[in-house]
Amino acid sequence: MKKLNIGMIGYKFMGKAHSHAYRDLPLFFPKHIHPHMKVICGRSLESVADAASQFGWDEYTTDWREMLTRDDIDLIDINAPSDVHKEIAIEAAKAGKHVFCEKPLALTLADSREMLEAVEAAGVKHMVGFNYRFTPAVMLAKKLIDEGRLGDIYHFRAWFLQDWIIDPDFPLVWRLQKEIAGSGSHGDLGAHLIDMAHYLIGDITDVIGMSETFIKERPLPQEMTGLSATGSQSKEKGPVTVDDATLFLAKFANGAIGSFEATRFATGHRSTNSFEINGSKGSVIFDFERMNELQVYFVEDKEDVQGFRRVLATDAAHAYSDVWWPAGHTIGYEHTFIHSVVELMEAFQEERQPVPNFKDGVKCQQVLEAVEHSIEQKKWIKVTDL
Amino acid sequence: MKKLNIGMIGYKFMGKAHSHAYRDLPLFFPKHIHPHMKVICGRSLESVADAASQFGWDEYTTDWREMLTRDDIDLIDINAPSDVHKEIAIEAAKAGKHVFCEKPLALTLADSREMLEAVEAAGVKHMVGFNYRFTPAVMLAKKLIDEGRLGDIYHFRAWFLQDWIIDPDFPLVWRLQKEIAGSGSHGDLGAHLIDMAHYLIGDITDVIGMSETFIKERPLPQEMTGLSATGSQSKEKGPVTVDDATLFLAKFANGAIGSFEATRFATGHRSTNSFEINGSKGSVIFDFERMNELQVYFVEDKEDVQGFRRVLATDAAHAYSDVWWPAGHTIGYEHTFIHSVVELMEAFQEERQPVPNFKDGVKCQQVLEAVEHSIEQKKWIKVTDL
Amino acid sequence: MKKLNIGMIGYKFMGKAHSHAYRDLPLFFPKHIHPHMKVICGRSLESVADAASQFGWDEYTTDWREMLTRDDIDLIDINAPSDVHKEIAIEAAKAGKHVFCEKPLALTLADSREMLEAVEAAGVKHMVGFNYRFTPAVMLAKKLIDEGRLGDIYHFRAWFLQDWIIDPDFPLVWRLQKEIAGSGSHGDLGAHLIDMAHYLIGDITDVIGMSETFIKERPLPQEMTGLSATGSQSKEKGPVTVDDATLFLAKFANGAIGSFEATRFATGHRSTNSFEINGSKGSVIFDFERMNELQVYFVEDKEDVQGFRRVLATDAAHAYSDVWWPAGHTIGYEHTFIHSVVELMEAFQEERQPVPNFKDGVKCQQVLEAVEHSIEQKKWIKVTDL
Amino acid sequence: MKKLNIGMIGYKFMGKAHSHAYRDLPLFFPKHIHPHMKVICGRSLESVADAASQFGWDEYTTDWREMLTRDDIDLIDINAPSDVHKEIAIEAAKAGKHVFCEKPLALTLADSREMLEAVEAAGVKHMVGFNYRFTPAVMLAKKLIDEGRLGDIYHFRAWFLQDWIIDPDFPLVWRLQKEIAGSGSHGDLGAHLIDMAHYLIGDITDVIGMSETFIKERPLPQEMTGLSATGSQSKEKGPVTVDDATLFLAKFANGAIGSFEATRFATGHRSTNSFEINGSKGSVIFDFERMNELQVYFVEDKEDVQGFRRVLATDAAHAYSDVWWPAGHTIGYEHTFIHSVVELMEAFQEERQPVPNFKDGVKCQQVLEAVEHSIEQKKWIKVTDL
Repeated sequence: MKKLNIGMIGYKFMGKAHSHAYRDLPLFFPKHIHPHMKVICGRSLESVADAASQFGWDEYTTDWREMLTRDDIDLIDINAPSDVHKEIAIEAAKAGKHVFCEKPLALTLADSREMLEAVEAAGVKHMVGFNYRFTPAVMLAKKLIDEGRLGDIYHFRAWFLQDWIIDPDFPLVWRLQKEIAGSGSHGDLGAHLIDMAHYLIGDITDVIGMSETFIKERPLPQEMTGLSATGSQSKEKGPVTVDDATLFLAKFANGAIGSFEATRFATGHRSTNSFEINGSKGSVIFDFERMNELQVYFVEDKEDVQGFRRVLATDAAHAYSDVWWPAGHTIGYEHTFIHSVVELMEAFQEERQPVPNFKDGVKCQQVLEAVEHSIEQKKWIKVTDL
Repeated sequence: MKKLNIGMIGYKFMGKAHSHAYRDLPLFFPKHIHPHMKVICGRSLESVADAASQFGWDEYTTDWREMLTRDDIDLIDINAPSDVHKEIAIEAAKAGKHVFCEKPLALTLADSREMLEAVEAAGVKHMVGFNYRFTPAVMLAKKLIDEGRLGDIYHFRAWFLQDWIIDPDFPLVWRLQKEIAGSGSHGDLGAHLIDMAHYLIGDITDVIGMSETFIKERPLPQEMTGLSATGSQSKEKGPVTVDDATLFLAKFANGAIGSFEATRFATGHRSTNSFEINGSKGSVIFDFERMNELQVYFVEDKEDVQGFRRVLATDAAHAYSDVWWPAGHTIGYEHTFIHSVVELMEAFQEERQPVPNFKDGVKCQQVLEAVEHSIEQKKWIKVTDL
Repeated sequence: MKKLNIGMIGYKFMGKAHSHAYRDLPLFFPKHIHPHMKVICGRSLESVADAASQFGWDEYTTDWREMLTRDDIDLIDINAPSDVHKEIAIEAAKAGKHVFCEKPLALTLADSREMLEAVEAAGVKHMVGFNYRFTPAVMLAKKLIDEGRLGDIYHFRAWFLQDWIIDPDFPLVWRLQKEIAGSGSHGDLGAHLIDMAHYLIGDITDVIGMSETFIKERPLPQEMTGLSATGSQSKEKGPVTVDDATLFLAKFANGAIGSFEATRFATGHRSTNSFEINGSKGSVIFDFERMNELQVYFVEDKEDVQGFRRVLATDAAHAYSDVWWPAGHTIGYEHTFIHSVVELMEAFQEERQPVPNFKDGVKCQQVLEAVEHSIEQKKWIKVTDL
Repeated sequence: MKKLNIGMIGYKFMGKAHSHAYRDLPLFFPKHIHPHMKVICGRSLESVADAASQFGWDEYTTDWREMLTRDDIDLIDINAPSDVHKEIAIEAAKAGKHVFCEKPLALTLADSREMLEAVEAAGVKHMVGFNYRFTPAVMLAKKLIDEGRLGDIYHFRAWFLQDWIIDPDFPLVWRLQKEIAGSGSHGDLGAHLIDMAHYLIGDITDVIGMSETFIKERPLPQEMTGLSATGSQSKEKGPVTVDDATLFLAKFANGAIGSFEATRFATGHRSTNSFEINGSKGSVIFDFERMNELQVYFVEDKEDVQGFRRVLATDAAHAYSDVWWPAGHTIGYEHTFIHSVVELMEAFQEERQPVPNFKDGVKCQQVLEAVEHSIEQKKWIKVTDL
């Protein structure tokens, strides 16, 4: 196989990020299988036609089911709103298509499990869009842990802080509606933190959480929108049905303990996606706003020069450095998607499942839902009980 | 009154910090009542004699009860280990002495309440040593909140991270023994965070916590010691009976939500005592390792130049700046004690109780104990139920 | 015009960066004129064929003169080593082609002036590759200055610090040979600082400099290479004929004073390209290693909250923010090239010269050479005397 | 000798800092010789009486010559304005008194040399107040250099940035008058940088400088004052006769090159006293606004974790750490004076000259003056030619 034909659903934020990744791959990773941008699908004919032309897709359609019937489509890339992930993914798998699905995998744990069963039954490849794993500085943290250079892990603390809805007059976009988004900061931001914890530390066994909706009602938006406050808003208000902030404490299978915070009310933080890990031999600190950097501390450093090092993960020793620019020349948010697609292509080349895949999506959903149960029941929940 | 005669108990870490504060006060705050360093008290005659000479006390004694009988002692300053705070404070109050007691006020909430009753019954002044309140950068945060410049408060998150016992061979000092210390990181570090939350945000109403002791046994020390690993250690080991780390989530009376973490296993952090507050109009971030700085964000800043400001709290507009050095010339840890003593002296001048006082100590103890209950009972605890 | 046909020379570091910019433009700036990647040219047939295929050029050639004869080429993009810029640019202009030339424009001021004359005589468009101007955070600095928000400018200080040749056994690549590179850190790194000064502050009138070559001899490389130490090195050594570091002081026409430092011996700095500007009303600080950030200070801020703000230039109010990702999602080094090409396309659309163009290239060269004279003559040099 | 009797001249900023250092020494360094605060001298009887009482001096006087006649004074500590340093120091030496003189030693190189001759002829001890040497983080830098851990030194760059006279209406205090202050930012701030360079790197051999006075005239102050803008100002203006900013480039005897900048017009910088050193094996960065930190980089660090470490110089391995607080508890500006006095006392105990002494003061003055010559003559000056 030299090319992988892609059919993609969705052309907004994630659709653009994925399209760019497909376009960039052959330039920077010429020896990998090349994704071929075959068909893009969206609800509005006019918009999807524009997107096809702008993003560089061969064809466009408004009917995703039709895409599944085509022999010249190998993989379905799902960037549609979260509430339709399940149906598309299962149908795609049944049609024998490989599936790359944005996170969160589904609105509920049960749904995500059905999806996993479907892809496994169909024997297709499946991947989930936890793109932050593919940040070179994060991969350095993973390497240090795997090589035992941080020792036994004691603490994991993670926080994803945003402030884009701090204005009470910001409209009730679909991301603030439970029936479409599933949850608010928890599923949107917390999901990334949970996957990061799974990637770096391992299984979470017990959780207890707390959540809050600070602004209970918001103006209804004029059109369907996820992130932005475009156009004039209605004077009518509707209830915010998702969490503005969710925090939880956690225990890991390996004995580490963790704290997690996802909020859209951290004034001044546009998108602080950050974690810190403390081990018996060292520590690391990461903040996605400075995504090229990892702070690293080693207990074994000489007594008089111990301190956190600011490592710029652009050196020859760091992931993907051969492909990008000379040391000290940084990369950006979109590169996490390019690297995700690299992993996807390598999985085809190496005839294995890509990582993270639907199993990771289910695992993440399980923790998300355990946290929700712990909030409803006001007590600790065993993750494996779900 | 021009002088306040002090009798102090304890001459180690806190004893030195308090003595220095008394010595510095007349130099930097000449118009305040001057503390007179009358008598210092300790268990070892030789050591306390040395301390008296070094620190500048007129006299020394090994009998704290005898101090209480002297007419020329106005105030008793208690820096002894936490398990003897209660007895000394109550006896001092009964003897009509004012009392300045280091934190934690006592080992239990019940004890701390008895202490509060005693000082109130005696009508004496009482203060508790939450010195971090007296950091100018923290006082700036307080001012911004009080003036409404941060708006409604949504989030308080605080962490006190240390790593001084990360080595499993570090001995079982008294701070790791429940019967003397009461608790571990929780009472030692968490107490400061809780008081900071009370000072800045207000009452905590509900808590749920988690704690862990990572290293269960440690070598027995050769001599009574609190912080350091002096001398050769025994080969024999004893059980660590306090928490290495305690985390908890909290709700505040004003609707804000909070997370707290106190740990002695945050490798690479010598003493990161830090908090962040997010409000509807702005945010602040503080880290005691950079104690002269407060990061401040305002929503109302012009659209193109919004960002956290690094404010160096040494300008004319900041607390105590007239007394210390020109703008940009920083102060250190010990100044928080000098400022504590300034508050104590001002309370005498203004004929009021100093703040923080035993009420604050009790309030802190109440939350500490509520967290402990929540850990034992694995559920949320209402603080006012205690 | 809807498309601009490009013929590009060079396929290494800059060739890749430019190619990527051309590929990305239609995706992110769909309404702009689209560059069409027509022909790529290089010395090695095999390598250029590979590059054409990888980068996405229609055709390839080893004969740049032949490219100039083609009617279907509108613009020549010169990424070849500095010593051949002049000949190619002049011939291209004579052939009526627009020219986009990487910096430094030429090896000498005289050469650069000839180039400017040639493009002006031919009436073609010309641009020079000072890509750092197109960093959104830098553009914010420019905006603040232009709007008078920093007041009168007093100080400009800039430093470009690298360490890639700190190892004395690093080979004598062409960038260390005067006959090819013209100069060392001065022309390579200092040129960027000088252009930044011209862009932000204005004309430099007087300079005095100092330079040093710390490692006088280095192993001869096995093959022609600019940046890297590939392959085994010869045991034979040759003289380093360029500067390892050049520093200079400067006066500006507007009364500001400046200091500049370019070095490849700043151990620990991979590529710290940084400046600070102090004005009567405010200051800004920039570091390309954190290229999405600008630190901004205003004198008029309230007395108690004055401090440098860390502005993340990814908000709606910042340049290109509508095209890239949501606020807080950063971009990287390569985006400066995409934005450069955007300016180039806009110049065609608006029928004007792009900025920066060969005039800026000449102006930069003039200061570079004035500094060299000041070093040789050990005295201050008036830039306009050259 | 157990006590050293001090007679001090001056009771403003430096007088307070020195007095505090004398008071603190016996508490924190009990085994050292104790300074005894015998007599304080000032021009105004009332003010000096107040100062004596506040600072804790036994006696006060307005006649410094009378102090020199007393047998019970061992050392004269000169904190008077710079223009009277010379006369007092020479007379004190003639009277057989040891001398501790604030920097700058004198207004001219010639004067400083006379002072050195006088103290050497008298055989007394002499010290100069370059207090920044005594910052533990700076001492760590010195240690790393001395132990060869930074390798050969290539670069020294230093900047002392302040903004206290940025307001054009700030009055013409004595620090802005050449006849009293000698020079402006150069002698006040630059002197500290030069001494730091001497301490850390070694002899400076060649210099070329530039200076500027941005605000040429200022309101006359109502009373003699050095730093502050107290009281209402006159409407009358007078000429500023010192430099607002002075920059210079330098060569060191050991082959390193340096750049220096001292300015009072760096808006937003209250007192940024900073340096960076790059060597063949490592680098260090220091900023006095974060005086407890040193950033340290080592070439030999493992390939994937190279980066500047933020070392908090409060660990057991750092200078004076046994005396101050537990690791992570910081110290402030005034501690540099305490440590200076510790060095003075140790010199007496060890029967040697303290360091830095008048030789260092002369050496600093020599560079200051060489820079001034280079500015007047607009050319490089050999320091040893002076």
